[in-house]
Amino acid sequence: MKLEQKYVLTSEIAREIVNKAEERAKELGVKVCIAVVDDGGNLVEFRRMTGAPILSIEIALNKAFTSIAFGLPTGQWYDLIKDEPALLYGIVHTPRLVIFAGGLPIKYGGKIIGGIGVSGATSQQDEEIAKAGISIFENQKV
Amino acid sequence: MKLEQKYVLTSEIAREIVNKAEERAKELGVKVCIAVVDDGGNLVEFRRMTGAPILSIEIALNKAFTSIAFGLPTGQWYDLIKDEPALLYGIVHTPRLVIFAGGLPIKYGGKIIGGIGVSGATSQQDEEIAKAGISIFENQKV
Amino acid sequence: MKLEQKYVLTSEIAREIVNKAEERAKELGVKVCIAVVDDGGNLVEFRRMTGAPILSIEIALNKAFTSIAFGLPTGQWYDLIKDEPALLYGIVHTPRLVIFAGGLPIKYGGKIIGGIGVSGATSQQDEEIAKAGISIFENQKV
Amino acid sequence: MKLEQKYVLTSEIAREIVNKAEERAKELGVKVCIAVVDDGGNLVEFRRMTGAPILSIEIALNKAFTSIAFGLPTGQWYDLIKDEPALLYGIVHTPRLVIFAGGLPIKYGGKIIGGIGVSGATSQQDEEIAKAGISIFENQKV
Repeated sequence: MKLEQKYVLTSEIAREIVNKAEERAKELGVKVCIAVVDDGGNLVEFRRMTGAPILSIEIALNKAFTSIAFGLPTGQWYDLIKDEPALLYGIVHTPRLVIFAGGLPIKYGGKIIGGIGVSGATSQQDEEIAKAGISIFENQKV
Repeated sequence: MKLEQKYVLTSEIAREIVNKAEERAKELGVKVCIAVVDDGGNLVEFRRMTGAPILSIEIALNKAFTSIAFGLPTGQWYDLIKDEPALLYGIVHTPRLVIFAGGLPIKYGGKIIGGIGVSGATSQQDEEIAKAGISIFENQKV
Repeated sequence: MKLEQKYVLTSEIAREIVNKAEERAKELGVKVCIAVVDDGGNLVEFRRMTGAPILSIEIALNKAFTSIAFGLPTGQWYDLIKDEPALLYGIVHTPRLVIFAGGLPIKYGGKIIGGIGVSGATSQQDEEIAKAGISIFENQKV
Repeated sequence: MKLEQKYVLTSEIAREIVNKAEERAKELGVKVCIAVVDDGGNLVEFRRMTGAPILSIEIALNKAFTSIAFGLPTGQWYDLIKDEPALLYGIVHTPRLVIFAGGLPIKYGGKIIGGIGVSGATSQQDEEIAKAGISIFENQKV
């Protein structure tokens, strides 16, 4: 029996992602919460920038969780469910599910290794900040 | 005093249902979570296919629970509540209630003996997989 | 940047573990719940044998979680905390923590890839059943 | 009307505390989770070192919360309650309360401005790591 392997999202990489995301938030002049979870949905690194809304703490955590738990950017959920009223009225109540932008899966070597969630600015800005965070993997050869 | 009887959804039957459902999921090329609960809503058998979303774990469990807890396929809930705004906006908050397809009551001898919940694909596929699971009772003489 | 790798506890292996554990439970003549979680603590496979106590459902799930969440057999917890009253009275309240036998980490290639939790018999029997489950990895060359 | 003022535990300071604590954890050769909350008990910074137990995520968060929520090191709780059975058996059930060492209030200028919680090693080591974190305030003139 030979088991398949997957990649480990280390603490160091999670911090690098959060640092990069925060840098972009500062450029945009917004204050956000940034969360990174591993592939099991468990928290690795979290930061609330000074002045970011307290409400955003849980939203950032949940965006990160949703991204890994379903493997899609949270910003794609509304389009997925908007034409099916049963989902639109129903699935949104799933605990920890966020259906608006700001959460992205973190991929490496073609596999999902974790998720990032950003909350505190507009959801478009949140997503832009999340994207900046995972840009640390660009131009990487695995 | 003579008490009425009910049928028991055994562990063996629950597993057979899950196996049959998984078979259909594989034919459809999707990865899902499959849960079977007994007539008390308590878990009997659960399977997460490799690669099925983590988010689907709880949804599958809740679809199985809803099916037995109200005695209807979860896919019929939206039509039931859509014209009563108080229900449409209110009852969807009931913990563990799922109002979209993928959960079915398990019936035998005209009685509900349990529920199956499937999550991970489209809700139509989820229901098709659930149906395949309970098809083991077809052509059965009680 | 090159990420470390870890092993994947697939659905097939989880089922094999549960089957093997159930076999041992039958030999012992007891009825138990058996849960297997992956390295993120998320449920992969669950079985309640016909007649196993409903109370054992959650205990089995929590034993599996505790095993992976701390990396130790649940049966070792009491000895760890018994001489520190603050832990003995305090840490036992941690949600999902179980401090009695029946949960074991699942190891492969020297790494923890998941956890198994068994509940329903005596805690010694529960652990024996869990051990039988993970015995599928014996004599394996990684 | 002139309102009293309080000090703000900024994101930058929280990170500095976490960094300092992690440094000590590395010296001790242990892997822990470290959480810093502000004076409202709301999360500011969190880090899970690679390999730290998943179980410690919530315990670290709760130790930080308890520290600020009651204004005492969590390690002092057991002595406070041990001679009052109603507390010893009762108050330990309070959600998010931790009664063993590893959580410390963060003080500045004689006031509590936040809390730090560490979990993953022995509770004595956890507290030592937490102490290292807040040592950044030593020799500070306010």
